[in-house]
Amino acid sequence: MNTIQSYINSHKDRFLNELIELLKIPSISADSAYKKDVLKTAEAVKSSLEKAGCDMVELCTTDGHPIVYGEKIIDPKLPTVLVYGHYDVQPPDPINLWDSPPFEPVIKKTELHPDGAIYARGACDDKGQMYMHVKAMELMTNTNTLPCNVKFMIEGEEEVGSVNLSTYVNNNREKLKNDVILISDTGMIAPDVPSITTGLRGLSYVEVEVTGPNRDLHSGLYGGAVANPINILAKMIAELHDENNRITIPGFYDEVQELSKEERAEMAKAPFNLENYKKSIGIPDIYGEKGYTTNERNSIRPTLDVNGIWGGYTGEGAKTVIASKAYAKISMRLVPNQDWHDITEKFTKHFESIAPDAVTIKVTPHHGGQAYVTPIDNIGYQAASKAYEDTFGTPAIPHRGGGSIPIVSLFEQQLKSKTILMGFGLDSDAIHSPNEHYGLRNYYKGIETIPLFYKYFTEMFNE
Amino acid sequence: MNTIQSYINSHKDRFLNELIELLKIPSISADSAYKKDVLKTAEAVKSSLEKAGCDMVELCTTDGHPIVYGEKIIDPKLPTVLVYGHYDVQPPDPINLWDSPPFEPVIKKTELHPDGAIYARGACDDKGQMYMHVKAMELMTNTNTLPCNVKFMIEGEEEVGSVNLSTYVNNNREKLKNDVILISDTGMIAPDVPSITTGLRGLSYVEVEVTGPNRDLHSGLYGGAVANPINILAKMIAELHDENNRITIPGFYDEVQELSKEERAEMAKAPFNLENYKKSIGIPDIYGEKGYTTNERNSIRPTLDVNGIWGGYTGEGAKTVIASKAYAKISMRLVPNQDWHDITEKFTKHFESIAPDAVTIKVTPHHGGQAYVTPIDNIGYQAASKAYEDTFGTPAIPHRGGGSIPIVSLFEQQLKSKTILMGFGLDSDAIHSPNEHYGLRNYYKGIETIPLFYKYFTEMFNE
Repeated sequence: MNTIQSYINSHKDRFLNELIELLKIPSISADSAYKKDVLKTAEAVKSSLEKAGCDMVELCTTDGHPIVYGEKIIDPKLPTVLVYGHYDVQPPDPINLWDSPPFEPVIKKTELHPDGAIYARGACDDKGQMYMHVKAMELMTNTNTLPCNVKFMIEGEEEVGSVNLSTYVNNNREKLKNDVILISDTGMIAPDVPSITTGLRGLSYVEVEVTGPNRDLHSGLYGGAVANPINILAKMIAELHDENNRITIPGFYDEVQELSKEERAEMAKAPFNLENYKKSIGIPDIYGEKGYTTNERNSIRPTLDVNGIWGGYTGEGAKTVIASKAYAKISMRLVPNQDWHDITEKFTKHFESIAPDAVTIKVTPHHGGQAYVTPIDNIGYQAASKAYEDTFGTPAIPHRGGGSIPIVSLFEQQLKSKTILMGFGLDSDAIHSPNEHYGLRNYYKGIETIPLFYKYFTEMFNE
Repeated sequence: MNTIQSYINSHKDRFLNELIELLKIPSISADSAYKKDVLKTAEAVKSSLEKAGCDMVELCTTDGHPIVYGEKIIDPKLPTVLVYGHYDVQPPDPINLWDSPPFEPVIKKTELHPDGAIYARGACDDKGQMYMHVKAMELMTNTNTLPCNVKFMIEGEEEVGSVNLSTYVNNNREKLKNDVILISDTGMIAPDVPSITTGLRGLSYVEVEVTGPNRDLHSGLYGGAVANPINILAKMIAELHDENNRITIPGFYDEVQELSKEERAEMAKAPFNLENYKKSIGIPDIYGEKGYTTNERNSIRPTLDVNGIWGGYTGEGAKTVIASKAYAKISMRLVPNQDWHDITEKFTKHFESIAPDAVTIKVTPHHGGQAYVTPIDNIGYQAASKAYEDTFGTPAIPHRGGGSIPIVSLFEQQLKSKTILMGFGLDSDAIHSPNEHYGLRNYYKGIETIPLFYKYFTEMFNE
């Protein structure tokens, strides 16, 4: 047993009990009724960083909840790791679907977690994963193995869109200067398959409105002679994909970063069972862009999905009406190099251009974010992969996530450094849902893997 | 001045006052709170038919509101006209949009009605138009000009779907036997352009449901890899029309009765101003099946319109969801010879066939009705046209209505006779809306024209 493992073994119960105490505080950032609890959690995190060996720890006030900042600079010549995490949690609603109270953590064994999992709001997202970094820091401090400088930035507003983080980062560029950013707020492919999220998709979200006649019309008297906004909207939406399910917006794919054969082959190594996938979401068959696998379609390829549609009579029974207006909410997931402002503009222009003269169109952009990617030849990635191989006995699989984490693009833009997403959660951990939990094995594996990342990253950085 | 005109002139004020009294009774069939008023109206109609000269008048009870039946059989060898009308009215809501109380009739002059119009719920639909027939009967009785037998069937449930009429008609086929059915419950093209509604469209109304995944999914994690029910529904709706706006359902047009060049030329004589049409409903341009005019598209051609659509997130802001289900209400207006059961079946089969394997489809038929047409060589039509020519100085224009009046098909089916729709209302009369009104000129013109119809019909019948 090496130093890391023996330290963890000796402090196992305390590591768990400390996390349980943190999970008991309902740090719900979305609900102002919990403002004091959010602050109490920030103070607990601050105190834990001090105990873990940081030289300087502070609560940085923002217009919202505070950011906990901590650092230990052992040598300015050595590289610096910036750890990002968040101590706030999602609201636990619907409460009645929880098997145990969300802020009274309990340990339960499950099929996927034979060693037990801790059930509580925030267990995985992100208190459990964030606290692994605090404990890894403690471990490195107490075993004299911290190989580089470290900075912690733990915020309390991630679940409400990190509204004040951008200002904080922008105002503290020098203070936050680093060589790599480390985040554990994502998942791994399977309990025994470590994976590193190397990419996140960007987003462009718009709302469209199609207007035909200036009032609802009787479909008997006008049907057939007047453009029906719902039919037209359906036609326009249909035209946004071709027969191969490729998006037809001119220039949409212009900047799309195509993956090499090698990268796609690497991705294809991820364990995936199509039948289980279909069964898990109850679909008769998969559907998507020709020439790509399911895992490619939902990660390295851009998409266009209607997230909501409405118009006309939607109540019980029948009403023979031609609606004056029809609406849809449409989002596009973007991949690296696609700029969401550019895509929003291209969408708008195209959507307006395909409308027949008989209707008028309004496109309202909602919001967006850039895609993000970490190249696997980046030393941050390499160090993480080597660390995983040590602790799991198998190298990490690079995984492109389909979702969007806007802060990662923000960090790259403002701090000019790459982020390594070392997630230890599982898709089945029910984050944002009732009965959120986090495997004890995952928690301890995280604490074991992180110091190795520091070790390998520093070695590679100095090479 | 002829007999008819002089009789009307002598009784003008009484004719109006009697109608005003009838309009004062709130015979709202949809609201059980008005049950007594509905009955009171039925009794008033009964009494008016007795005074007009009917030999036998009765209130026929049904499971709902009573039907007023009256008749005068002068000679079994002479033809029989069956007059249908209704004494019930639509609810007046929204009351606050009425300029005067809906059941306190007032006379006002307007641009379209320089001689004045009577403002009240039911003024046009259908008390005013129905009462023209009662007064025409009185006129013929008192001037000894009734040339044939006459039967009246005035119901009190037209505004709630004539729910008990079918049973009544079916149980009284012999009693209701007739040679032509006469109804004034439609409109004319313009104040000085008499027109006869020669056709009504049928209807097939269905609801469709497209199911993808068994629950709403995160569009970041699944977007691109899973069939999105809203996108699929849009695509399927779009596929229901081709590039010429023809409906693509196989066999949909098989039974469609095409009009002859002559019939289309006759239709085209109806005054129509495209710019005014566009302006009246605020549309930038018209839209419809290639090869047909606006008036043809909304009357002699079948259509397919989405009357309502919904799915996914339709609230404020943005939610990145792939909905589990998407829905639409779709109605098809049908033309003569298309059977609505057959069309519903063809739609269902086709809609299921164009669905990709990645979704499941459910089609639920709501209701339907057959189209109806009166050939213009029918003596009923000829008699009506001649009558109009006498009173308006111009022959009536045959007009195919785009809407559906299911009772007309019912009469043809059960009583084996054709219906002549002699409407005297105007589109601008605001039936079913606040400030419903009926022009006094239209009312008196109706009373003047109807006896001429009896005269010409009897003459032509005997030829």
